[in-house]
Amino acid sequence: MNPEKILFTVLDGLGDHAYRELDGLSPLEKANTSDLKRLKENGSQGLMDIISPGVPPSSDVSHLVMFGYDIEKEYFGRGPIEALGEGVELEEGEIAFRGNLATVRVENNYPVVVDRRAGRISSEQTRELTEYLNDELGSFQGFSLRFKPLSEHRFVMVVSGEGLSHEVTDNDPHGEGKPVLLCQPVEDAKDREGAMRLADIVNRITVEAIRRLGKHELNRSRGEKGLPEANAILVRSPGVKKRMVSFREKWDLNAACVAAGLLYKGIGRATGMDIYRVEGANGLLNTNITGKLSRALELLDKYDFVYLHFKGTDVASHSKDPVAKCSFIQRFAENLRLVDDAVLEKTTVVITGDHTTPCDRGMHSGEPVPILISSKGLRKDDTRVFSEREAVRGGLGRLRGCDLMQILLDSIERTVEYGTRPSPRRINYMPKQLTYLRLTG
Amino acid sequence: MNPEKILFTVLDGLGDHAYRELDGLSPLEKANTSDLKRLKENGSQGLMDIISPGVPPSSDVSHLVMFGYDIEKEYFGRGPIEALGEGVELEEGEIAFRGNLATVRVENNYPVVVDRRAGRISSEQTRELTEYLNDELGSFQGFSLRFKPLSEHRFVMVVSGEGLSHEVTDNDPHGEGKPVLLCQPVEDAKDREGAMRLADIVNRITVEAIRRLGKHELNRSRGEKGLPEANAILVRSPGVKKRMVSFREKWDLNAACVAAGLLYKGIGRATGMDIYRVEGANGLLNTNITGKLSRALELLDKYDFVYLHFKGTDVASHSKDPVAKCSFIQRFAENLRLVDDAVLEKTTVVITGDHTTPCDRGMHSGEPVPILISSKGLRKDDTRVFSEREAVRGGLGRLRGCDLMQILLDSIERTVEYGTRPSPRRINYMPKQLTYLRLTG
Repeated sequence: MNPEKILFTVLDGLGDHAYRELDGLSPLEKANTSDLKRLKENGSQGLMDIISPGVPPSSDVSHLVMFGYDIEKEYFGRGPIEALGEGVELEEGEIAFRGNLATVRVENNYPVVVDRRAGRISSEQTRELTEYLNDELGSFQGFSLRFKPLSEHRFVMVVSGEGLSHEVTDNDPHGEGKPVLLCQPVEDAKDREGAMRLADIVNRITVEAIRRLGKHELNRSRGEKGLPEANAILVRSPGVKKRMVSFREKWDLNAACVAAGLLYKGIGRATGMDIYRVEGANGLLNTNITGKLSRALELLDKYDFVYLHFKGTDVASHSKDPVAKCSFIQRFAENLRLVDDAVLEKTTVVITGDHTTPCDRGMHSGEPVPILISSKGLRKDDTRVFSEREAVRGGLGRLRGCDLMQILLDSIERTVEYGTRPSPRRINYMPKQLTYLRLTG
Repeated sequence: MNPEKILFTVLDGLGDHAYRELDGLSPLEKANTSDLKRLKENGSQGLMDIISPGVPPSSDVSHLVMFGYDIEKEYFGRGPIEALGEGVELEEGEIAFRGNLATVRVENNYPVVVDRRAGRISSEQTRELTEYLNDELGSFQGFSLRFKPLSEHRFVMVVSGEGLSHEVTDNDPHGEGKPVLLCQPVEDAKDREGAMRLADIVNRITVEAIRRLGKHELNRSRGEKGLPEANAILVRSPGVKKRMVSFREKWDLNAACVAAGLLYKGIGRATGMDIYRVEGANGLLNTNITGKLSRALELLDKYDFVYLHFKGTDVASHSKDPVAKCSFIQRFAENLRLVDDAVLEKTTVVITGDHTTPCDRGMHSGEPVPILISSKGLRKDDTRVFSEREAVRGGLGRLRGCDLMQILLDSIERTVEYGTRPSPRRINYMPKQLTYLRLTG
């Protein structure tokens, strides 16, 4: 019998290069445990271009592609996904930005960023200042505006109103010592006029916020204590909340998400998965790997598809630390003893990354990610070690991210033959709801 | 640090089969030097289908695809590219044909080609005859016509006027003993009426040219000396000059071209590259390989992207001479000592072909070309010898030509993440021109 469940494990930024300090191996190559080899023997590996060769994907887009979403039609920006991950509720059509309270100093009328996080101002003070901004600017020149405080200096800024398009650039210069940017329509905006309108609002709000925050009592007292004043707002990653077809509607699989990072929880929420928290899971290198993996395995009793995300690999990559990345993967790979034969009997287990983040680059690259699909329902290849280098010769060959869901559905016999039917699509020859022929009326 | 420059080397028609006279190896396999192996160790190889599997590309289309052009939208025929390579200036909308002065004899009123090159008539005489045609036919039935003499029997014929489409066939039968062909619209012409109009002009001009050239004094004297008369024009490869987005506009890389063959210089000019000549470079087997490679390496100081083209490989292939092809590749590969560690530190080096021209076929085939990308910025594979056979197991897998530029940009960190932004295209999160927020108007 084929497996019936899918455990979809993402080690964020898994793909990498080889390093001298790892004996000329990549972090994944070096970290192969006997349990990872056992999973390999039960399946096939390959390389996967999430978008296409050479294109480095961002994490949100990458996950959506792997989950079978058509980015050109179904992606509306990162802001709302992160907001959802933070538990912020959004209405359809609302535009959400991620934001920071920041410290600027004014030079020749240009505000220049001194501290992008206003000295990591406390959550309480951020709450107080954003409530003040809501009172002062909540109804702004015919548009509705609200700030939702998050942890420390962070907030979400929500704009709504008629005739706006989210296709604008950040005002956040993403660095200190740089002037605040003018928000503008993106180069290829489809609704340029709407984007002009939103950009104009963002620029006016930014000016107004700087004017008002600078006079706020709380900032005066921070100034007196020698703390950086939270005297500006920096906003980034705009997106519009639109209805997204849920993962279940798309694939007829009920799905759970075990993730700690807010973007990944946001992706789970955006696609309608049930989100589960695990004690000690923190999206960092010292996360509770055993707890997360155990929880995911338990959830396979109840769910068809469990999405399990680990951020530690990417954290190490961005810190350019291949040794830390390797030991994180090794800790994960040792925990794979939990994925025993009984689990493999009923489960297709995927281990992959959402992009390659080479430690020597410290940023996403456009190189393909290694992927292992361990499944009783599919052909095995004859490679031994799951790694970037061996994956070149793996049985999965070189895939595109958009083809992945179909392979996974196939491994659990949830595909139907393409063809036979009058229209050769992925529809079954029987309707989901059976209705019977009756001989007499 | 990642490399910042790209050296893009095309060995024309590189891909091939294996031959007994090369000990059962392909010309590339047999020619591997220690320096080529060193470059291989610094990178990955693969196979590349320029268009798609089994489709043999022409050289002009192949280069444009590799440079990231969309052929369906941005290619307008070979004539103007070759004309540009010859240094002919063309206006937007002008239609250019390549042409030969030829010798025909008339049989039952059909002109039959006796010599496609009129005994390789001299450049001076071609100049005289084309000037005569310009005087006689320059303004032809409401359309403007001009002949530009090139070396020996060659010329460019330029037609301009309202309501013409370049989508017509050659009148050149591409062989001797064959009658001159009627010029006609191509089967799938989009502007059939415009193509009918141009075909009609070409046919009338051909008749008029035959009538007039036959009576020219110069031909009479050639006849008396027993030389073939240049008494006809054969035209081929029509195309329309349209504005092409430059390579720099496309990729934000300034680019130089080191090529001797006119088509390749034409591609360089058409895409807005700066063209460099090298002493002793001639597009033949005995070209100055050292000089061209040295010049290309020097140009990397000034340019982000250097396109370096060698024709010798293809010349040998068309002569069905694998031994000559192998020794040409070997001479090239020995010169790779110039690409030393200092160069590799800062440069992504590509070695590939624009198509496969198997020596046993003597023509382009639709087989993929081997490609080596040697770059400190990308993953290495564990193959050793750069060759068609090893490339099957190479880390680049099997690519399409259209994906190449993205991989090269990624190797020099000139890609940006796909996603994050409101529209998930290849645009940065900051506009190219930064504009800053000003507090007072």
